Amino acid sequence: MMKKHNFSAGPCVLPQEVLKKASEAVINFNGLDLSLIEISHRSKDFIEVMENARSLAIELLGLEGKGYKALFLQGGASLEFLMVAYNLLEKKAAYLNTGTWSSKALKEAKFLGEVAEVASSKDANFNYIPKGYTIPEDADYFHCTSNNTIFGTQIKDFPQTAVPLVCDMSSDIFSRQLDFSKFDLIYAGAQKNMGPAGTTLVVVKEEVLGKVSRAIPSMLDYKVHLDKDSMFNTPPVFAVYVSMLTLQWLKDLGGIAAIEKINNEKASLVYNEIDRNPLFKGFAAREDRSSMNATFNLVDEAHKDAFDALWKGAGINGLNGHRSVGGYRASMYNALSVESAKVLVETMQELEKKVG
Amino acid sequence: MMKKHNFSAGPCVLPQEVLKKASEAVINFNGLDLSLIEISHRSKDFIEVMENARSLAIELLGLEGKGYKALFLQGGASLEFLMVAYNLLEKKAAYLNTGTWSSKALKEAKFLGEVAEVASSKDANFNYIPKGYTIPEDADYFHCTSNNTIFGTQIKDFPQTAVPLVCDMSSDIFSRQLDFSKFDLIYAGAQKNMGPAGTTLVVVKEEVLGKVSRAIPSMLDYKVHLDKDSMFNTPPVFAVYVSMLTLQWLKDLGGIAAIEKINNEKASLVYNEIDRNPLFKGFAAREDRSSMNATFNLVDEAHKDAFDALWKGAGINGLNGHRSVGGYRASMYNALSVESAKVLVETMQELEKKVG
Ligand SMILES: Cc1ncc(COP(=O)(O)O)c(C=O)c1O
Ligand SMILES: Cc1ncc(COP(=O)(O)O)c(C=O)c1O
Ligand SMILES: [Mg+2]
Ligand SMILES: [Mg+2]
Ligand SMILES: [Mg+2]
Ligand SMILES: [Mg+2]
Repeated sequence: MMKKHNFSAGPCVLPQEVLKKASEAVINFNGLDLSLIEISHRSKDFIEVMENARSLAIELLGLEGKGYKALFLQGGASLEFLMVAYNLLEKKAAYLNTGTWSSKALKEAKFLGEVAEVASSKDANFNYIPKGYTIPEDADYFHCTSNNTIFGTQIKDFPQTAVPLVCDMSSDIFSRQLDFSKFDLIYAGAQKNMGPAGTTLVVVKEEVLGKVSRAIPSMLDYKVHLDKDSMFNTPPVFAVYVSMLTLQWLKDLGGIAAIEKINNEKASLVYNEIDRNPLFKGFAAREDRSSMNATFNLVDEAHKDAFDALWKGAGINGLNGHRSVGGYRASMYNALSVESAKVLVETMQELEKKVG
Repeated sequence: MMKKHNFSAGPCVLPQEVLKKASEAVINFNGLDLSLIEISHRSKDFIEVMENARSLAIELLGLEGKGYKALFLQGGASLEFLMVAYNLLEKKAAYLNTGTWSSKALKEAKFLGEVAEVASSKDANFNYIPKGYTIPEDADYFHCTSNNTIFGTQIKDFPQTAVPLVCDMSSDIFSRQLDFSKFDLIYAGAQKNMGPAGTTLVVVKEEVLGKVSRAIPSMLDYKVHLDKDSMFNTPPVFAVYVSMLTLQWLKDLGGIAAIEKINNEKASLVYNEIDRNPLFKGFAAREDRSSMNATFNLVDEAHKDAFDALWKGAGINGLNGHRSVGGYRASMYNALSVESAKVLVETMQELEKKVG
């Protein structure tokens, strides 16, 4: 097998040891002589997986004993756009618009009530994070996107809010230390830092629920899922299991504090090269640069074929930028090795040697 | 590895060759030197998986060229309870209540409009399928559950309907030949005859959509998913892949006609023994017996420990009945071998020898 350097934006690189265990469990899980995916989700063995996954999430975020619970749901972050509003929006909600995903979250919330867009960076193709905006005090909640996967920006300072704080952390959860107890509801599709596509982590402070007057359909009601310990209906067994393995891997590594150092090292390597190398320029405003997704372009598009051949030849995968930005996007999620970041830097330097 | 006989009601037994391929793909998919679960869902390799899964579903159901499309969604059949009503219920819908799942479907539909329960077998703990009911002609659609997983009953003759026919086929899709073109919308959680938990197949006749006046949130709108070829948001990659493998396995076997013969053979073996053996009695009305889930009880509960020891010792798994019925439930989905059905019959006969 050729060593690949997987910079895919999601689904994305996962730890090799996690993949190995997941592969084995598909054949024989827990020594049961049955596959993980052919046993009842009500079996002791799977209930243990679900409970481990839920408690590992709470523990890694430092939220034990603070009134939070974790759910593993289906539908992706996209269904959370709707569920958040169904469960929390009584009259008016405030949204910060920092990109494609924020815009979509905002759009779905409008089905349930009034939405105030407190600020937007759409004027500059979302290459920065708006600051100094005001959150209406009568909003039911404030919603933001911590990391903008497509544009490569990341919120560094979250606002102090009088109203509940809701955050889509799909693309940077478990990647950096934050005071997670500032948030009332966090959600994240698994397919970046947590596991395969097919499950969504929701971490919610229970006290914010039950305040809207509408009747909520069962599958969209966080309370229904909480009452059933995230097993109201058949959960996405495989995705939850692999998420559990990845969270255990992170815990064994030293948790968020440890991975944050590694993530910062990778981001420094890549951003330093983007800045140093005269052939490349960064897309996002410097102060808002994401440590997960580095977006950058060639100064001269004429070098595209040469660069593409170089990185593909080096075993790099998934470096093409999203069509909204063009150029390149180096997604450096938790499981990406420092070595992979170095290989990318070397190919950028090779291009310079070749054409510079 | 001890040979297991997996009678689990779902998630449940899958073909061994499917499990083997799935396990390999978690390490190295399509020879890419990357895991199936760490590549982009927009990659050529995964788009091919999704397209194959969709077209195999249509082909196996004999619905090619008849105006139908297939979707692989998230949220389980439970989310379809809601989506069906969101997309089709303008004023009033008609529901046949044949068990726990029908009741839940009906409950969610009530969030969107009026629901007429045309008949119910609740009076007899759902041990039969009501017949001779009338479907109101002004209903937006008629909803039924083809196979009642918990109670072990199955609809043999579907009513002629003037209104669109919607069916939850979660636990018997792809198991028997039907004129599937009688149905306007079919849905099924994957975790019985198709694959792992985590994806839901929806097969819909496009012409029935777009007729309700309400605005439908994106993730609940079948048209949104159809327009994006089932990739509106990140699909549950692994569950779709394994479903595709299972559908391919079924096609190679000879399709629904071939599996129906095997399913009938298994069902005959088990029901004949239930009837013959004086220690056991069937739960469901004979004419409505499910070929997928055989529910039965001990005539004398005093033999419970002896029988449980016998089947567990024989490598049988998942035979305990649902708490609504008690006793036993032998789920005999497509991937269960005739050999496993024979092993169950032998343990029933052994009990007779021991205590009879
Ligand atoms: C920040 C963010 N939010 C939401 C989504 C949508 O997630 P999903 O495809 O699971 O619905 C994505 C997907 O990449 C994302 O990056
Ligand atoms: C007939 C039927 N419908 C619906 C469901 C619910 O499916 P899910 O758990 O995927 O929501 C089940 C689950 O066993 C079922 O058997
Ligand atoms: Mg974005
Ligand atoms: Mg530069
Ligand atoms: Mg039932
Ligand atoms: Mg008998």
